[in-house]
Amino acid sequence: MAELAQRSGLSVATIKYYLREGLLPAGEAVGRTRASYDESHVRRLRLIRALTDVARLRLDTVRDVLAGIDAAPTWHEAVGSAHTRLGSPDPDAPPPTEASLARVRRLLEIQDWQLAEGHPQVLVLARALDTLDELGHPMSDPMLNVYAHSIRPIAENEVLSLRHPDWGGSRDLSVEAVVIGTLLQEPVLLALRRMAQEDLSRRYDAAERSS
Amino acid sequence: MAELAQRSGLSVATIKYYLREGLLPAGEAVGRTRASYDESHVRRLRLIRALTDVARLRLDTVRDVLAGIDAAPTWHEAVGSAHTRLGSPDPDAPPPTEASLARVRRLLEIQDWQLAEGHPQVLVLARALDTLDELGHPMSDPMLNVYAHSIRPIAENEVLSLRHPDWGGSRDLSVEAVVIGTLLQEPVLLALRRMAQEDLSRRYDAAERSS
Repeated sequence: MAELAQRSGLSVATIKYYLREGLLPAGEAVGRTRASYDESHVRRLRLIRALTDVARLRLDTVRDVLAGIDAAPTWHEAVGSAHTRLGSPDPDAPPPTEASLARVRRLLEIQDWQLAEGHPQVLVLARALDTLDELGHPMSDPMLNVYAHSIRPIAENEVLSLRHPDWGGSRDLSVEAVVIGTLLQEPVLLALRRMAQEDLSRRYDAAERSS
Repeated sequence: MAELAQRSGLSVATIKYYLREGLLPAGEAVGRTRASYDESHVRRLRLIRALTDVARLRLDTVRDVLAGIDAAPTWHEAVGSAHTRLGSPDPDAPPPTEASLARVRRLLEIQDWQLAEGHPQVLVLARALDTLDELGHPMSDPMLNVYAHSIRPIAENEVLSLRHPDWGGSRDLSVEAVVIGTLLQEPVLLALRRMAQEDLSRRYDAAERSS
């Protein structure tokens, strides 16, 4: 247990808590008071830590995500499960308006994206558009299409890397690949977006001052 | 107060809590027990709600963000303030490695992005790369450049829309524009990315089955 803490960078108390909460599978009992843990435990703890610290997920969400992916019979259902659990609309949020749902459907048509019926991200996106409307800062359809068009090559590279043969073998690695591909690269994407905004903002300013 | 609750969709108890916490400026006292609130209060409450419900920010972060933007003397310092406070590295997280910082600097060179010295997003990005390394799923430099290159047109459209003359007038609107531009469009971007991933994943699968 002490070694597990040292290798995962988590406190023994935290690890015991994860064991109680069912986030970490129990180790193999060795005598009455000791248990032995292996690589998979270290890996799972690192993943939990990344999901809570980096992806900022709540612990109950982490549990759902891991349980759902572990239970998925195929790679693709694992991906779907991760997307559903990681991206489900806030249950407390009101349902999206028909107007925004229609905008999302039109966007999917224009971009020729075919999603499973009732895909949670459709609701999430429609809801996000409603929020921008409610705040008096609606996102225009052209802007929405710029977003969709620009994000496509990113998604393409991600899907190709996720489908890399290396992931085929171990479910444990697949769990990580799904979660990391879906969640842990988001901070990279968002940091780059803010950097680009800052660089462009500075350029436009300089252009204005010099004109 | 009751009207404020009705118009903002928040409970009176929540609004009183925000007043106590200094998130919402006090209304104008009308007699000893009543106060009058105006449009700016409704707008601020909607913004706080969006930041907590949509952007999932903690309340103390929301306070910092709003205070920082309200205090910024210029539009650009407001943008910088929002980026800093919204994007500061987790204080509990270890500092990024020199190797990742060097990768980020090289990326900025390749993309010709010029950022203010010690820009927080540089640390955030380097730290995110470290996390992917630690999890055994490093992001390659080519992939990082694909991300940066693809995100650029999105940032360009956002900066241009943020700089729209409409925002020039009212600081209140500017606060919203910064926060919304920085944060509330992120769910749109991330939902689109997941949709594209799902569509591409399905296409590759179909291609494999048919081959």
